[in-house]
Amino acid sequence: MDEHPPAPNGGTRETAEPGETHSKIGSQLVKWGVVLLSGLSVLLIPTPEGITAKSWRLLAIFVATITGSIVRPLPGGAVVLLGVSAIALTGVLPVRDALSGYADPIVWLVLAAFFMSRGMIKTGLGRRIAFLLIRAIGRHSLGLCYALASTDMLLGTIIPSTGARSGGIVFPIAKSLAEAYDSKPGATAGRLGAFLMPVLYQCDVIVCAMFLTGQASNVLIAKFAQEVTGIELTYSRWALAAVVPAVLSLITVPLLLYRIFPPEVKHTPAAAELAAFELKRMGRMAWGEKMMLIVFALVAGLWMTTAFHGINYAVVALVGICVLLLSGVLTWEDAISERGAWDVFIWYGGLVRMAEALGETGITKRFAETSAGFTSGWKWWTALALLLLVYFYAHYGFASITAHATAMYIQFLTVILAAGAPPYLAVLSLAYFSNLDASLTHYGTTPAPIYFGAGYVTQRRWWLLGLLASLVNIPIWVIFGFTWWKLLKLW
Amino acid sequence: MDEHPPAPNGGTRETAEPGETHSKIGSQLVKWGVVLLSGLSVLLIPTPEGITAKSWRLLAIFVATITGSIVRPLPGGAVVLLGVSAIALTGVLPVRDALSGYADPIVWLVLAAFFMSRGMIKTGLGRRIAFLLIRAIGRHSLGLCYALASTDMLLGTIIPSTGARSGGIVFPIAKSLAEAYDSKPGATAGRLGAFLMPVLYQCDVIVCAMFLTGQASNVLIAKFAQEVTGIELTYSRWALAAVVPAVLSLITVPLLLYRIFPPEVKHTPAAAELAAFELKRMGRMAWGEKMMLIVFALVAGLWMTTAFHGINYAVVALVGICVLLLSGVLTWEDAISERGAWDVFIWYGGLVRMAEALGETGITKRFAETSAGFTSGWKWWTALALLLLVYFYAHYGFASITAHATAMYIQFLTVILAAGAPPYLAVLSLAYFSNLDASLTHYGTTPAPIYFGAGYVTQRRWWLLGLLASLVNIPIWVIFGFTWWKLLKLW
Repeated sequence: MDEHPPAPNGGTRETAEPGETHSKIGSQLVKWGVVLLSGLSVLLIPTPEGITAKSWRLLAIFVATITGSIVRPLPGGAVVLLGVSAIALTGVLPVRDALSGYADPIVWLVLAAFFMSRGMIKTGLGRRIAFLLIRAIGRHSLGLCYALASTDMLLGTIIPSTGARSGGIVFPIAKSLAEAYDSKPGATAGRLGAFLMPVLYQCDVIVCAMFLTGQASNVLIAKFAQEVTGIELTYSRWALAAVVPAVLSLITVPLLLYRIFPPEVKHTPAAAELAAFELKRMGRMAWGEKMMLIVFALVAGLWMTTAFHGINYAVVALVGICVLLLSGVLTWEDAISERGAWDVFIWYGGLVRMAEALGETGITKRFAETSAGFTSGWKWWTALALLLLVYFYAHYGFASITAHATAMYIQFLTVILAAGAPPYLAVLSLAYFSNLDASLTHYGTTPAPIYFGAGYVTQRRWWLLGLLASLVNIPIWVIFGFTWWKLLKLW
Repeated sequence: MDEHPPAPNGGTRETAEPGETHSKIGSQLVKWGVVLLSGLSVLLIPTPEGITAKSWRLLAIFVATITGSIVRPLPGGAVVLLGVSAIALTGVLPVRDALSGYADPIVWLVLAAFFMSRGMIKTGLGRRIAFLLIRAIGRHSLGLCYALASTDMLLGTIIPSTGARSGGIVFPIAKSLAEAYDSKPGATAGRLGAFLMPVLYQCDVIVCAMFLTGQASNVLIAKFAQEVTGIELTYSRWALAAVVPAVLSLITVPLLLYRIFPPEVKHTPAAAELAAFELKRMGRMAWGEKMMLIVFALVAGLWMTTAFHGINYAVVALVGICVLLLSGVLTWEDAISERGAWDVFIWYGGLVRMAEALGETGITKRFAETSAGFTSGWKWWTALALLLLVYFYAHYGFASITAHATAMYIQFLTVILAAGAPPYLAVLSLAYFSNLDASLTHYGTTPAPIYFGAGYVTQRRWWLLGLLASLVNIPIWVIFGFTWWKLLKLW
């Protein structure tokens, strides 16, 4: 799940995950056993009163699907398709209803945004943005890092494909800059690459948290939040609430890592020169690049101002795609061969509907009532603090933000709310933590294996840096985030 | 539209169409002009009483989309996506409603069937079927043709991708057999290739007509028929009504062409030997191939027996895909990179909903009432005969069965019904003629440019053969078809 990086070698992210050994049939069988068992164990629990047998079967299939997304006997998209098929075949939902997630505007928003990312790479606009920033502030290795992180942040405003942002734009530039300073995996790693790679990954994780479009499953998280609390995490609301802690994190984390593990090369005038050279070589903006820039500004602008014009997010994204198709920036062939987009489309459309249907059954509500007893007597902030920490560090066990959030977001939110926490506080902190926790490992989310896989840093170092980043991010988002949301009158 | 042939060179069918010149901006502008004009001219007609302004705008967008699918300023899928976006942007339908075709089970049936076609090619089962038939009856060039046409027919029971059937399985075998008899484009074309290529195309057109899964837009035609008459063209009903005239056509057309333009090579023992050799080389069926055969039989069997078990067609297809994914016959990567499937998914899902929504506006009904006046005083069979012929030969102007049927099926059906023709007769004859008319040209439907493009036959000859085939097909389907449907008590 999450997504396939747009690697030209066609390799999928799954292959980079730990314990993924496609060849071993035995391990596959164990995985399927776990998946089936998870569903069966739900079925073995007597259906609670007031819940229909059909609803309970839906829960069983949902649990098995989520388990499948975690243990991965097949790629996440395939597991979800199996879940959707099971729902239709067993008559838990009529087939049209089971498939209705695929007509959900939010799913099409993500699909369209993946198509836009292709345009961003294809036209070179993403590279140009990066080089402009490097030319401006890249004469120092720390500035270089800020330049690339800012590129990532700018792109994150409309591109939820972290694979496209990192793998397609930021990572290749970072790698060529490291090599320009003779920093390669091994003895020379410490010159520049060993600093740049983990820091850029850490910044990407913060960017993921910053926007509704930061990564593909944020829209899913927003759906979950609405399901449980009725709070609509619009594009602008998400970004507004995130901007203060996110910018602080984006400034602090690189600084900290720069202090602790400084690169040997501190001054990087050649980077700025390289950027200037590349910009010269790219020449003036071509027609396609200009169109891409216009679409970029148009889409981001319309998303931020939804409150004024009321045009649906998905319609904005579709119009963006239409302009790119009409202007020839994207060909139809580009769209239909964008594998990553279709992968996300299938798993996301399936999960959205499953979670929604589960909410309609009353099971989620029942769970909330039951869990209220669990935290009774607690102060809400004890429950919030404790459960946020558990939620965060549970990500050591997940290879995907989507899998983690799908498995735990609704449940944790429900329990925290039951303890009496202010709804916005619970919804937002869990949403942002769902992303920030990906900092911990070298498999936390899509770009992790890309940056880690470059080979500049040992796994031990990578995990240490991830842990350090978490120790910075959590206080920043709790202290400054909570304060900021108080100022915004969200609680 | 129709589909992209799965050509390894990544070339799309569009490039093979006449007048498609991507480079000429002028011709593009003219095309867009025509599209816009078609929509505008609807808007300029005063909205009839009782029809809302919104409904009329929907009609304008629909007309522009269909015009766009015909003149093709962009590939068909892109044009439909533009139409869907226009509907959502102008508020003619709420965005979720505009997208709801993408949750339509019939659209997922087609998507799943395209995935299955990949399995058919990948496992080699399609080739094995072809070689088995060639070994059995391929010692004569006419038998060879029947063997390959039978392969096509067998595959047509579940594979609506004519590109996969022809381009992926039948055509490569036909080509290698022609070359095995030293028949290449040019001087030696007449030895075998000049017979085989056009005949196999003609047979494929008949197979297209024979099954609901014969080609991708038959399901769309079935939707249209249900829209107008309420008659449900189920898989088994479609095939049952077609079987008599289709088999007669499949026997007669090759015979006729064999008489008129006989190949120089009449005895082809080497073909049977080659088939035997290839079968030997393929060895026993591998695990994947066996699984594919089981899924093939399972899906076709369940589709034919829907009346007994009531499992939705799409669910059957999804279960087929699940089995292929579970058994590893298809990988997830196979599914998400199946470009042709996604292309069909987008245009089909968009058109299905547009046509449905149009029916809901009452415009279609109004059109029927108006057109009743047009044919008043006619005998119904005069109207049927005349309009069927016009419908059939209008295909000279279309490069796609989908575009033709979308532009004309509902209207012609409505007028024929208004003249008092028996509903089943009108529905079925128009449905089958929508496919059979593709015989006429070298761009009639997806496989046409594949077979024609092999270069064995001049365009003049190709058109002549197409015309001859139509003169055989029309009487067969009218005389034997109508009689057969009478026996089936359909009218």
